[in-house]
Amino acid sequence: MSAPFVHRHIGPDDAQVETMLDRLGHPSLDALMEAAVPKSIRATEALGLPDGVDEETAAAELRALAGANVPGEAMIGLGYHATVTPAVIRRNVLEDPSWYTAYTPYQPEISQGRLEALINFQTMVADLTGLHTAGSSLLDEGTAAAEAVALAFRANRKASGPFVVDADALPQTIDVVRTRAEGIGIEVLVADLSDGLPEGDVSGVLVQYPGASGRVPDIKPVIDAVHERGGLAVVAADLLALTLLEAPGTLGADVVVGSAQRFGVPLFYGGPHAGFISVREGLERQLPGRLVGVSVDAEGRPAYRLALQTREQHIRRDKATSNICTAQVLLAVTAGMYAVYHGPQGLKDIAGDIHTLAGRAAASLTGAGLELVNDSFFDTLQVRVPGRAADVVAAARAEQLHLRLVDADTVGIAFGETAGAPTLRALHTAFGVTPAAAEPLAGLPEAQRRTTDFMTHPVFNTHHNETSMLRYVTRLAHRDYALDRGMIPLGSCTMKLNATTEMEPISLAGFANLHPFVPAADADGYRQLIEQLEGWLAEVTGYDRVSVQPNAGAQGEFAGMLAIRNYHRANGQDQRDVCLIPSSAHGTNPASAVMAGMRVVVVKAEDDGTVDLADLRAKCEQHADTLAAIMVTYPSTHGVYEETITELCDVVHEHGGQVYIDGANFNALLGYAAPGRFGGDVSHLNLHKTFCIPHGGGGPGVGPVAVRAHLAPYLPTHPLHPDAERRDGTGAISAAPFGSAGILPISWAYIRMMGGAGLTRATAVAVLSANYVAARLGEHFPVLYRGESGLVAHECILDLREITKETGVSVDDVAKRLVDYGFHAPTMSFPVAGTLMVEPTESEDLAELDRFCDAMIAIKGEIDKVGAGEWAVDESPLHHAPHTTRALVGEWDRAYSREVAVFPAGHSVDKYWPPVARIDQAYGDRNLVCACPPIDAYSE
Amino acid sequence: MSAPFVHRHIGPDDAQVETMLDRLGHPSLDALMEAAVPKSIRATEALGLPDGVDEETAAAELRALAGANVPGEAMIGLGYHATVTPAVIRRNVLEDPSWYTAYTPYQPEISQGRLEALINFQTMVADLTGLHTAGSSLLDEGTAAAEAVALAFRANRKASGPFVVDADALPQTIDVVRTRAEGIGIEVLVADLSDGLPEGDVSGVLVQYPGASGRVPDIKPVIDAVHERGGLAVVAADLLALTLLEAPGTLGADVVVGSAQRFGVPLFYGGPHAGFISVREGLERQLPGRLVGVSVDAEGRPAYRLALQTREQHIRRDKATSNICTAQVLLAVTAGMYAVYHGPQGLKDIAGDIHTLAGRAAASLTGAGLELVNDSFFDTLQVRVPGRAADVVAAARAEQLHLRLVDADTVGIAFGETAGAPTLRALHTAFGVTPAAAEPLAGLPEAQRRTTDFMTHPVFNTHHNETSMLRYVTRLAHRDYALDRGMIPLGSCTMKLNATTEMEPISLAGFANLHPFVPAADADGYRQLIEQLEGWLAEVTGYDRVSVQPNAGAQGEFAGMLAIRNYHRANGQDQRDVCLIPSSAHGTNPASAVMAGMRVVVVKAEDDGTVDLADLRAKCEQHADTLAAIMVTYPSTHGVYEETITELCDVVHEHGGQVYIDGANFNALLGYAAPGRFGGDVSHLNLHKTFCIPHGGGGPGVGPVAVRAHLAPYLPTHPLHPDAERRDGTGAISAAPFGSAGILPISWAYIRMMGGAGLTRATAVAVLSANYVAARLGEHFPVLYRGESGLVAHECILDLREITKETGVSVDDVAKRLVDYGFHAPTMSFPVAGTLMVEPTESEDLAELDRFCDAMIAIKGEIDKVGAGEWAVDESPLHHAPHTTRALVGEWDRAYSREVAVFPAGHSVDKYWPPVARIDQAYGDRNLVCACPPIDAYSE
Repeated sequence: MSAPFVHRHIGPDDAQVETMLDRLGHPSLDALMEAAVPKSIRATEALGLPDGVDEETAAAELRALAGANVPGEAMIGLGYHATVTPAVIRRNVLEDPSWYTAYTPYQPEISQGRLEALINFQTMVADLTGLHTAGSSLLDEGTAAAEAVALAFRANRKASGPFVVDADALPQTIDVVRTRAEGIGIEVLVADLSDGLPEGDVSGVLVQYPGASGRVPDIKPVIDAVHERGGLAVVAADLLALTLLEAPGTLGADVVVGSAQRFGVPLFYGGPHAGFISVREGLERQLPGRLVGVSVDAEGRPAYRLALQTREQHIRRDKATSNICTAQVLLAVTAGMYAVYHGPQGLKDIAGDIHTLAGRAAASLTGAGLELVNDSFFDTLQVRVPGRAADVVAAARAEQLHLRLVDADTVGIAFGETAGAPTLRALHTAFGVTPAAAEPLAGLPEAQRRTTDFMTHPVFNTHHNETSMLRYVTRLAHRDYALDRGMIPLGSCTMKLNATTEMEPISLAGFANLHPFVPAADADGYRQLIEQLEGWLAEVTGYDRVSVQPNAGAQGEFAGMLAIRNYHRANGQDQRDVCLIPSSAHGTNPASAVMAGMRVVVVKAEDDGTVDLADLRAKCEQHADTLAAIMVTYPSTHGVYEETITELCDVVHEHGGQVYIDGANFNALLGYAAPGRFGGDVSHLNLHKTFCIPHGGGGPGVGPVAVRAHLAPYLPTHPLHPDAERRDGTGAISAAPFGSAGILPISWAYIRMMGGAGLTRATAVAVLSANYVAARLGEHFPVLYRGESGLVAHECILDLREITKETGVSVDDVAKRLVDYGFHAPTMSFPVAGTLMVEPTESEDLAELDRFCDAMIAIKGEIDKVGAGEWAVDESPLHHAPHTTRALVGEWDRAYSREVAVFPAGHSVDKYWPPVARIDQAYGDRNLVCACPPIDAYSE
Repeated sequence: MSAPFVHRHIGPDDAQVETMLDRLGHPSLDALMEAAVPKSIRATEALGLPDGVDEETAAAELRALAGANVPGEAMIGLGYHATVTPAVIRRNVLEDPSWYTAYTPYQPEISQGRLEALINFQTMVADLTGLHTAGSSLLDEGTAAAEAVALAFRANRKASGPFVVDADALPQTIDVVRTRAEGIGIEVLVADLSDGLPEGDVSGVLVQYPGASGRVPDIKPVIDAVHERGGLAVVAADLLALTLLEAPGTLGADVVVGSAQRFGVPLFYGGPHAGFISVREGLERQLPGRLVGVSVDAEGRPAYRLALQTREQHIRRDKATSNICTAQVLLAVTAGMYAVYHGPQGLKDIAGDIHTLAGRAAASLTGAGLELVNDSFFDTLQVRVPGRAADVVAAARAEQLHLRLVDADTVGIAFGETAGAPTLRALHTAFGVTPAAAEPLAGLPEAQRRTTDFMTHPVFNTHHNETSMLRYVTRLAHRDYALDRGMIPLGSCTMKLNATTEMEPISLAGFANLHPFVPAADADGYRQLIEQLEGWLAEVTGYDRVSVQPNAGAQGEFAGMLAIRNYHRANGQDQRDVCLIPSSAHGTNPASAVMAGMRVVVVKAEDDGTVDLADLRAKCEQHADTLAAIMVTYPSTHGVYEETITELCDVVHEHGGQVYIDGANFNALLGYAAPGRFGGDVSHLNLHKTFCIPHGGGGPGVGPVAVRAHLAPYLPTHPLHPDAERRDGTGAISAAPFGSAGILPISWAYIRMMGGAGLTRATAVAVLSANYVAARLGEHFPVLYRGESGLVAHECILDLREITKETGVSVDDVAKRLVDYGFHAPTMSFPVAGTLMVEPTESEDLAELDRFCDAMIAIKGEIDKVGAGEWAVDESPLHHAPHTTRALVGEWDRAYSREVAVFPAGHSVDKYWPPVARIDQAYGDRNLVCACPPIDAYSE
């Protein structure tokens, strides 16, 4: 009975909307949108979605869906294991808005908490894998393996021969590696490595450790052999097993990858989880994805920030060899905190208990005359039960255990953290054995027992009681600025409300604890939810089919480009490999195209930022025979509804190309225009933008791909998909059949509660808010692009280039100064260097919009003082921003007062204090340190 | 498989315990406890409790217990209504440690967040009830009514005649009022007020509005009549109904009471909920319980703090007329936030929807020929179904509706916020009616419709979107210091870990959404849990029977004293009404004794703080015929295990008295001594101390009473108890049969996870920690009392009186200066003025204990500088503490540096910044303002 959810989600209430419309001179939201959105694309019908329901109804429906899943005890293994999320971490990290509503730490001064948590994760991974440097997470184990193969390939271009993949690798890893390798022309050879490497040239090898079968191979001979042949060795390892097994790095591995899921991250029916990657010294600069490093701030203290960003795809564009943007920060933080809470000994104890249980099962099953397939094991057994495997699996299911049906004669059993004596009893029942008293079998080969230390840093040896742990995560949270403190006006990132009712369901056992490879019947709730969500997304985008498998926007792009590529091939048009990309495109676009095996041809932009149609026509003519596709973002990355989009689509189609419309800016279209209806053949969406999945401090993201019917046969498949017909085809692009299934309830809830009318209103208010900001700030900063109507779409670009030229005040200075005013900076220097892009979203109410505009206008006043010579730029508060409490208590010889420094908008007891001053980026890249610094680094 | 819970709960690990034992010179924890606990009381056997289980097992068991309750839709009414807790409030207030681990705001400078939330609650109650001043919550509606009757009685002593209570008042309210009135000699007359007041002298009246029957009486004539006869008018009102009905204050009521449960607080099977009380101008200083007021801080800004504390029982002792200590802060905050989120119009809409639904039900039922008992209504109907009432209730239950079985011929239906069209359909099915289309009946008498405004303050008209609401609660939380930031070393309050696994279950629907008056069969999970918990508490205390009904420690005391009084009466010993109380007792003790109708006689304490046995003997002799009881706290409020406790018990018993052992300090005994075995006849426990229920910023508390068998017949009863044999007897002392049932899972989980050995170890570590602190700080401050062994119990008293005399530095100065060092102060001036009492508890690890000791020692160094004349006391950082950011940026003319002011222990990015400077207590009491101050009060 309470207020409809749409009024909770949308910030400005009716009166505020009126005020804003008045400011813009439009009589209504309808009139505004009529003026803003080109008629040629505007939807003529309301969205065909059910009406919105209230929060309690949506919550009840989600409880029912969760209840239709049958989690049981997950013992299927294959890279996904039952784990216990410590309650203190669940409540105070996974379920806490201060963690999950944070943005990617591109503004490191206000992200020190999650950066520390990530450097803990990196240290844990580097230590456990025995390698020098670990990244701050990848999307999952499968893509991490694919990234490792690509890394090995580009780091070692002189090597020849195929890249050998262990036949005992996880089946989904093999599939993802194949999908990814094909696009970039790497030959993959899957081989049984138990007798060593195959003969001949080999450019590299990927060994699973322990294997999917449970076997613990001796990896050193294979590593040595591949090195002898000039190749690199990648090991896909189980982090928990590494607490007992010698580290692959110690054994010579060049790269180690895997999943940190079993470190306290719920199974989530396959994701999101943090994949990991670590490399030996010398390969750091080849690492894909994000890397947290230590640098120093302007006060000389150690400070964390993202390192080596020049590697990243948004800089390197079509020279990039990875399109990774997102990480899995929230899950990496969770896994790192799990390690902090348990410590090295606690992890060893958990691993030891699991191993002992597996050993007891091995003893009782072999004691009863059954045969084990694997003679060594950490946590996984394969048991030979000729002809009876399906029966045993069914009997186990009746006991609430999910085992793995390997084949008709073989059952797989993987023990996890939740296993105990009742698990063994249920197993015995399922196998029909009566255990005799017996010592547990030892499964770990003695020679491979770990002798090296790990996680010796104090952070892993201090917070083992809950009080201390709670305070540690609270301290880190307090260091950061997230949506729970104020607006994050990041252009292109749509930092809007992540409503609690959307978030709560992901903790339900039915969603959280389900293994991704349970039989379809045991995942009925998820499958209903996914089918509905895919249907709703198809409706709002105007496409025919959607796949939620891509677990990040970049993965969605890759899946979409792959669909286009495979479509052309199926039509005998192999030669169509040219992808047109406007010069203004996000750097991920060219990277994705290249990964799908295409060549990038750049199309010019007009001065006003729109695609140069004349150049487009010329390029289409020039590449008429080889044109595969165009990738275009709509509204453009300039935040403008281009009038020419339909013409653009027509031109490309006329020349045999497919149109990829990047859905990054879908928050400006939803309900008003559908790319699948105005000319697109394929799009991806960012559910963590338009559809309210939180950014989590830099992931998880979800990037479904939506296609018209002719591309549907080329959507991602998965070797273990619950629907048999979706097992073979284009290949897997994520490790799990439905990607980050565990967070799809968030977007489902958002659509369910908003309904078609609510979603449409949200779009209009997002556009209204952007135009309101553009109107207020346009009097102080030039707004770079506007549509023909004089309106922007859902974001606006403030051009500081003249200001910088005249005064020396940079966008960086403005961004950091905004911290002193209590704000996160807008997007800096994208898509145009020297500008700030502001996207207010529909969730910020007028008071917050005005507070932001007031801050920006006040900062303009400060810039004017610099311009007028009142302050030298390097003595101005802009240059010294952000200001810390440390600066405040010290000697004060600034050209401005302490009040101006820290309370420029007036004193506030609620001020956010940045824990560090401006960070020296270059220093950190020159002196690369990517693990926890020693405690004495902080001594003052 | 992870670490046992005992290692998560207890802060110091084995190595730290060794270090601390070394410092104290005891070889082991056993040896320490052997030395500390007098042999005469020491338990000889281990606790008879089940072994501890891990967190996941306990959580699973609690899910099963919750699942054994049948919440359905609660339509029983009687003061408890289905409500929707907005998810943003549930997650970020009720489930957030920054709110629930906070202490009572006795240190207002570090409690401004929850004080603002409470003043919102007060403003909301004052506005809705139309009275001048509202308190910051009472325990429940029943006790609020009893407090109001007592207030009326003492405010108006010249009035004569009985206090008339509306026969249509809630049955539990009538019972609680009777129980409480009897002790203090107020005659209660229950009368049907529908034809006006009964004839004759009347000292006051309590009217229910609307009545328990659902009827909306015209209360003005009754109010006028009682005023004419010189009495006061108390109205027990439904807050939600008051959004539509004229405010009782406007109609002349002197006092209004009720429950704020239906403002978003879960039903919790009866509690905890926030009771409320408001009074007309002139009665403020009579208000029982806590009252938040506005004052000013040292920088001249408005600041909140508890007002008029001189009224409170711990000051007034046996002159007190209420023993209320705890409030229901967490629930009052929740209710206040519900009002903030919905605003006045949102509340009216909710009330209007509920009323319309009731009207539709009334139309369809009467349309089908059924008769309504009440001709007016807000949300509740009584329907005449001769002979069929039980059948209709059973049919409704089959439809998942809980209706009220009024009598064999009458069914009660109360609509709540969760009701909707499906509710009506289910009702029609249950009554077997086929509704014809009809307009809803109007139930609100036109003359009583509300015409006055309420909740016009901006705080109730701003945060109606979730983003804004989230930031508001986050801002308030950030203003406060709670256990999530650091130690709260409050003597006598046992501020220890509230583990997440203990807290999570209270959100389970089976626990949260159950109405207290469902049939026993539908509360099976709760009843199992309560039976086990009462059994475990009996075991650990050594008593025979436990009642969890008292919902605060003071209620437990009152219940215990009442049991003694009724026991004597039953034995024909009516004259036994003298209660001996040592001079060192907590002020609540004498207040409770007086409330139970006893006379207090004070027994002297020796210089070392122990009870003067000679004086005890003398007093026993003197009052041999009239001795009823002694109330004694053990270990004493001085934090010492007195050797003479068994002798004390013997002496009292010899003289016919009963021994009440206050369990406030049970954290020093658990597992080592049981009061029921060493001489006690009755004790209460504070589950929010020893048994981990969080303090919630000042409530909820739970105070079970435990008795030996001979007192068991005199335990609290309840007119609606699910067990028929516990309906009549001593009477109800709480509104709900099991008091704050909803939070009992917390204590259940604690005991279940710790097991007997874990609980015993916790006690030993608590004693170890207190002695470690005493040892470290004893070198700098005199430790006031120690036992014969030279050891303290679980807390220690630091004597600052000499220091104050010599230097002028007060305990207040030290307490406030601790804030600058990042700590909450210890207990100030209790039990001895001029001292600080420190209770570290077992949950703080050695690092935090040392950080605290280091801070205290550093402060002693600062005091020494004052002593040495280096700083004048009123120019010292001690005097100016706590230091704010505002002071920091302003002119600095202090005798010490900014660094010394705010970073005395070195710079920290994690520093907690108090939002206000030292608050002027007297100013606030002289200029009493207890509602939200206008926004411009904050303009700077």
